[in-house]
Amino acid sequence: MSTYAWEKNVRKVTPYTPGEQPKLLSMIKLNTNENPYPPSPKVAKVLREFSADTLRLYPDPSVSDLTQALAGYYGVDSNEVFVGVGSDDVLAMAFLTFFNGKDPILFPDITYSFYDVWADLYGIPYETQALREDFSIRREDYFKKNGGIIFPNPNAPTGVAEDLSLIEEILKKNPESVVIIDEAYVDFGTPSAVSLIPRYDNLLVVQTMSKSRAMAGMRIGYAMGQPALIEALNNVKYAFNSYTMSRTAIAAGVAAVEDASYFEEICHKIVSTREHVKKELSALGFRFPDSRSNFLFVTHPDIAAKDLFAMLRQENIIVRYFDKPRIDDYLRITIGADEEMEALLSFLRKVCMKKEGI
Amino acid sequence: MSTYAWEKNVRKVTPYTPGEQPKLLSMIKLNTNENPYPPSPKVAKVLREFSADTLRLYPDPSVSDLTQALAGYYGVDSNEVFVGVGSDDVLAMAFLTFFNGKDPILFPDITYSFYDVWADLYGIPYETQALREDFSIRREDYFKKNGGIIFPNPNAPTGVAEDLSLIEEILKKNPESVVIIDEAYVDFGTPSAVSLIPRYDNLLVVQTMSKSRAMAGMRIGYAMGQPALIEALNNVKYAFNSYTMSRTAIAAGVAAVEDASYFEEICHKIVSTREHVKKELSALGFRFPDSRSNFLFVTHPDIAAKDLFAMLRQENIIVRYFDKPRIDDYLRITIGADEEMEALLSFLRKVCMKKEGI
Repeated sequence: MSTYAWEKNVRKVTPYTPGEQPKLLSMIKLNTNENPYPPSPKVAKVLREFSADTLRLYPDPSVSDLTQALAGYYGVDSNEVFVGVGSDDVLAMAFLTFFNGKDPILFPDITYSFYDVWADLYGIPYETQALREDFSIRREDYFKKNGGIIFPNPNAPTGVAEDLSLIEEILKKNPESVVIIDEAYVDFGTPSAVSLIPRYDNLLVVQTMSKSRAMAGMRIGYAMGQPALIEALNNVKYAFNSYTMSRTAIAAGVAAVEDASYFEEICHKIVSTREHVKKELSALGFRFPDSRSNFLFVTHPDIAAKDLFAMLRQENIIVRYFDKPRIDDYLRITIGADEEMEALLSFLRKVCMKKEGI
Repeated sequence: MSTYAWEKNVRKVTPYTPGEQPKLLSMIKLNTNENPYPPSPKVAKVLREFSADTLRLYPDPSVSDLTQALAGYYGVDSNEVFVGVGSDDVLAMAFLTFFNGKDPILFPDITYSFYDVWADLYGIPYETQALREDFSIRREDYFKKNGGIIFPNPNAPTGVAEDLSLIEEILKKNPESVVIIDEAYVDFGTPSAVSLIPRYDNLLVVQTMSKSRAMAGMRIGYAMGQPALIEALNNVKYAFNSYTMSRTAIAAGVAAVEDASYFEEICHKIVSTREHVKKELSALGFRFPDSRSNFLFVTHPDIAAKDLFAMLRQENIIVRYFDKPRIDDYLRITIGADEEMEALLSFLRKVCMKKEGI
């Protein structure tokens, strides 16, 4: 773009590269942590019966139907819930709102790869904190002066979950910082920090309907925290785009939240599959942290991750590989349906047998 | 919020106040420039037949189906189209992307009230330029040093349209600035600046499906410009939220663009109604600039706008009043369906007769 006169006024960014979204339906897609099951049948019903005529009108800017449904499900007040266009939108707004100080914000060196992208986008100073060798967080790293703290729990792409006691201690040591717990994968077996909200005015918990509620395609994320935090977030949202949630997204979101039993059923199925896959992968010599999410972060002593990634791609099985320090010998594998995981395991068995020269 | 320790790191904003969105369906809603007609029947069909199961997967981050449909309709290349969550989202991204210089950006003193909100949100310096008494733009005001230029055409809330020759002269005088023409209301009788795109690498044209395509509730806006501009915008978008457009929004957007004849039909109906309402309002003594949009910006020599606003509210007719310098004696009235405008006119006739003591 260096040939354009207007270039000097343009913001330069290194954009986040989203996981591949192939249009080929024949692929086994285990690369972006989507849910292998469809959303609640109630979502399908609500869309089938949706009155398209109402689309001529703006949606409710306060998204009250959906915030109320979420508040009811999570046992918080509706002024303690903020809704956005996926948790990326919620997190992007939260960075813009809460990380506006001079001190660096803190997050792990191995984590969701959007955090440094947002920090760069807004010019927020940041300092990454090295995880231990087992990918766990050293709580003392977050006791220093900072302009805000964020990490996912369970962490991505490692799947490692931290105890609420660690989160609570970090909250206590940082009354001057907003601490964001990014719970995109919390519904697959990690205790949520939502229970801490009444006691900590500096805690923001962010979740999404993209993973556990099987609605990545509908773009719904949300944050929960005490009313003052939510109000600050809403003020920035209203200064950015008053109407972010479409009428269809609101209707589908409400239906998904209301169908709690279906939600629990599919989470349970994914957790069962994950535990089975863990055993099978262990037997093949793979090593991985004990994931509490809907993915596994695996490495093998005898097969380079990058090579395995390419071999799987040949078989039309897509997983995620991050060419980054400390994790460049790992693959992140989404937990799909049982038959998808069986296809993966069966191929991995062949690869491992060949490696052993059998 | 002054009691919270974390407050010092929080961004302070004066949020934009969106027009009232009453839930009462019995009201005559002429306050947010929505379309009185439903979206294309093809949109209803697409939603009815939408496969909810596909929602488990992320949407296409490049939104290629919709950018291609728009490119086809407007006769540009698909790498010359950017899509976002309503034109507010597109404009918010464009401010963040293109208005990153040190010199103030320029826009009219009377204009869309979100421009100064975005400038404040991102800390962009700006200087408003006074419109003439007849609400037209003085082109020389935009020949000074600046970090970017934006104005709606036709302007809001005045409805005044500028000639493309004025836009072209501003583009020529400002090769170092991105010039954004906000065409939210262009389809109601204003020539579009899209025709200038091949000749000016600094022109970004922003449009929306909220008004002329009757889909305010679906949240779809788009920008058109030369590939380098669109690439810069996409880079910032990918650094903010990779997946902004839901699968339902993409499907509905494609259907709406493809039904060109329905689109033209409803635009034509609204323009006819507007021209009729102009005559009737003139006869009642109202004055207004010659609107080329789907609203009229009216004042009356004998009735204060604020009082009339309150009287209409009593009658369940909602219009928009801006308590701002130079326009605090005007009302912005959306062009609704014929029967809605008849109800409005009939009430205004009564008010005017009473005023004349008849």
